Amino acid sequence: MPVNLPLPVASDLFPVAGVALGVARAGIRKPNRKDLLIVQLAEGSTVAGVFTTNAFCAAPVRVCQEHLQYSSAIRAWVVNTGCANAGTGERGMTNARAMAKGTAEALGVSEQSVLPFSTGVILEDLPMDRIHSGIQMARQDLGKSDWLSAAEAIMTTDTQPKAASVRLQVAGRFVTITGISKGAGMIRPNMATMLGFVATDAAVAAPLLQQLIRDAADESFNAITIDGDTSTNDSFVIAATGAGELRFSSAQDAGWSEFRAAMIDLCRKLAQAIVRDGEGATKLITIHVAEAASRDEARQIAYAIAHSPLVKTAFFASDPNLGRILAAIGYSGVPDLDVNKISVYLDDLLVADRGGRAASYTEAQGQQVMAKSEITISVRLARGSASAVVYTCDLSHDYVSINADYRS
Amino acid sequence: MPVNLPLPVASDLFPVAGVALGVARAGIRKPNRKDLLIVQLAEGSTVAGVFTTNAFCAAPVRVCQEHLQYSSAIRAWVVNTGCANAGTGERGMTNARAMAKGTAEALGVSEQSVLPFSTGVILEDLPMDRIHSGIQMARQDLGKSDWLSAAEAIMTTDTQPKAASVRLQVAGRFVTITGISKGAGMIRPNMATMLGFVATDAAVAAPLLQQLIRDAADESFNAITIDGDTSTNDSFVIAATGAGELRFSSAQDAGWSEFRAAMIDLCRKLAQAIVRDGEGATKLITIHVAEAASRDEARQIAYAIAHSPLVKTAFFASDPNLGRILAAIGYSGVPDLDVNKISVYLDDLLVADRGGRAASYTEAQGQQVMAKSEITISVRLARGSASAVVYTCDLSHDYVSINADYRS
Repeated sequence: MPVNLPLPVASDLFPVAGVALGVARAGIRKPNRKDLLIVQLAEGSTVAGVFTTNAFCAAPVRVCQEHLQYSSAIRAWVVNTGCANAGTGERGMTNARAMAKGTAEALGVSEQSVLPFSTGVILEDLPMDRIHSGIQMARQDLGKSDWLSAAEAIMTTDTQPKAASVRLQVAGRFVTITGISKGAGMIRPNMATMLGFVATDAAVAAPLLQQLIRDAADESFNAITIDGDTSTNDSFVIAATGAGELRFSSAQDAGWSEFRAAMIDLCRKLAQAIVRDGEGATKLITIHVAEAASRDEARQIAYAIAHSPLVKTAFFASDPNLGRILAAIGYSGVPDLDVNKISVYLDDLLVADRGGRAASYTEAQGQQVMAKSEITISVRLARGSASAVVYTCDLSHDYVSINADYRS
Repeated sequence: MPVNLPLPVASDLFPVAGVALGVARAGIRKPNRKDLLIVQLAEGSTVAGVFTTNAFCAAPVRVCQEHLQYSSAIRAWVVNTGCANAGTGERGMTNARAMAKGTAEALGVSEQSVLPFSTGVILEDLPMDRIHSGIQMARQDLGKSDWLSAAEAIMTTDTQPKAASVRLQVAGRFVTITGISKGAGMIRPNMATMLGFVATDAAVAAPLLQQLIRDAADESFNAITIDGDTSTNDSFVIAATGAGELRFSSAQDAGWSEFRAAMIDLCRKLAQAIVRDGEGATKLITIHVAEAASRDEARQIAYAIAHSPLVKTAFFASDPNLGRILAAIGYSGVPDLDVNKISVYLDDLLVADRGGRAASYTEAQGQQVMAKSEITISVRLARGSASAVVYTCDLSHDYVSINADYRS
């Protein structure tokens, strides 16, 4: 059961002018489920992407990076679930290229204008016959703008599809942003998430879009963690089709800051949706580290807390065993930490100050906050003005069950 | 159920000349269990220790470090379980000093010659009345050399006491080494383990003993991890009483290398015992990373694998979902890793080479190895001659249960 994550409603997901979607049931790993998606982009679209930093990055990630580097005209994304095409050596590269080429031929565009994405089990080869027939089926399905169906087609252990959409007026013109994501496990994105796809009908100049995706990733997909495992396949891309009313060529253009804020907000929703539906998650935990000397050290501490199995199991149990948070801060590796200046809050409740338990704190108060489904841990370091926010979930029996059973 | 860890037998644990043990049931957290231990050391003993690097290190750790710095004549260790006296601010320091002082008075030695140790729940104050009456009870119990009982008195969530002992002839003289340890959770020692106490009747010059404990920690307690949580209380001390036949003043002395090897071997057994009895552990996993450019990068990769919840749950399930190992290697953060040169073995079975699945590998073979209770993961990086070994366990439902229920 995801944490406060309503099922997306198809009619709430606005079509994006310049984007056509096609979905197929290709039987890649399991029969009779949506597992292949083609996103066709209008001529003139700009596309930017950020990808995993995992050295064992998947073959499709390498192909995406090549194509984004050499082609300024991306015309389609093709995505399969069920097999990650990672840890597959040279054959993996051949297969990822063939997946792009097959899609390119089906759409009548060049191979370099297609970005391939895969997610699923690592160390297994893509079943290319099913990929190719899936591409044909998805091509025939193109045209409808069913983002909910697209979100379903990229799920792995996700318990529900994840999508967000917004239509707003900026500088007197209408603009639409719609996106989908998937996650669930092996989630500790580093430059991106497992998979996030966002499209807008605004026209955005390529360098501007590249800067926007970095900023958006930093505040959304790069600020979440479920289990600390950085996937081999993390990919997050944004397309700006230019088929709508709004055009941006520089950050000084009227409405850019509003558009930027709307884009980041939507990405944050998609990223949080991944945590809310984290494997076995029962709680959404927001970790806010403030008064740090640098953003990096704030993040380092936030991630130490977010990755501590002991902190995560205490939240699962609603047990205010909060010394575990202090321990995680202490071993985070930030140098010269003066613990006697640190204070820790659970929501608005002061738990620890001056390196010890706050005099005003009672277990009963702690218990009350721990029982909630969304909790903020605030840490104040009293050594600067930088801060960072990280979103995570608890560690439950279901996490173990899901990952012990994932392939079977 | 610990992994292949026989219950220690009292008669297998040799007394160490110059060491007297006393145990009490002080009711510190739970009634009627052994929870306080005094180890009295003969005059002339040398003592060396290594301690947690956690910035929120516990008050007793700070007092130990002070006493070891200012006193060359440690005469006793006093240990309580049930309360860690960590995250307790200034009152914690006062209490740790009072615990040392109370023991010193009971034994007629100076406060600075006593090292205090605590383990248990963080963020709670020591119940000093019970500590003081426990000290009196333990003093009355002094004299017997019951190492098994001592091992029981330092347990927290350990399912069984951990002890090892060896008596051997070195350079024609008899020497005894006996030690105890405890662990179970919050185990990713950094310079030491939760608690490890070792004594020998050899005489060892203080600087030599200090070097020995660093080497021993490096190959034993510093090479284990259960959940990646570095405790606030990790402490590992060795006493050399000099009450036996053997004396070492320098590393050139006859028999030193044999004695050193025996000491390291015993420490490794005590450290492995902690992993075998890790919270919820069903398997002992040895991770051997070889052909690295440096020992540091070998350890970095070994720990990335050892801390991956996805790797750990796959081992719990005996599921050869081994792409997860590649993913962990890939995100370990070691720079310029050429994945196409890396090979991975499960015991002697080649699983991956040249960045992909080995042609000879079959799932059935993987399954067979995964079903064992002790498994070695070997990673060869083909970029140097350094190596490192890390010991860990799997992540099971019981880990979650134990840590969700720990305080209740």
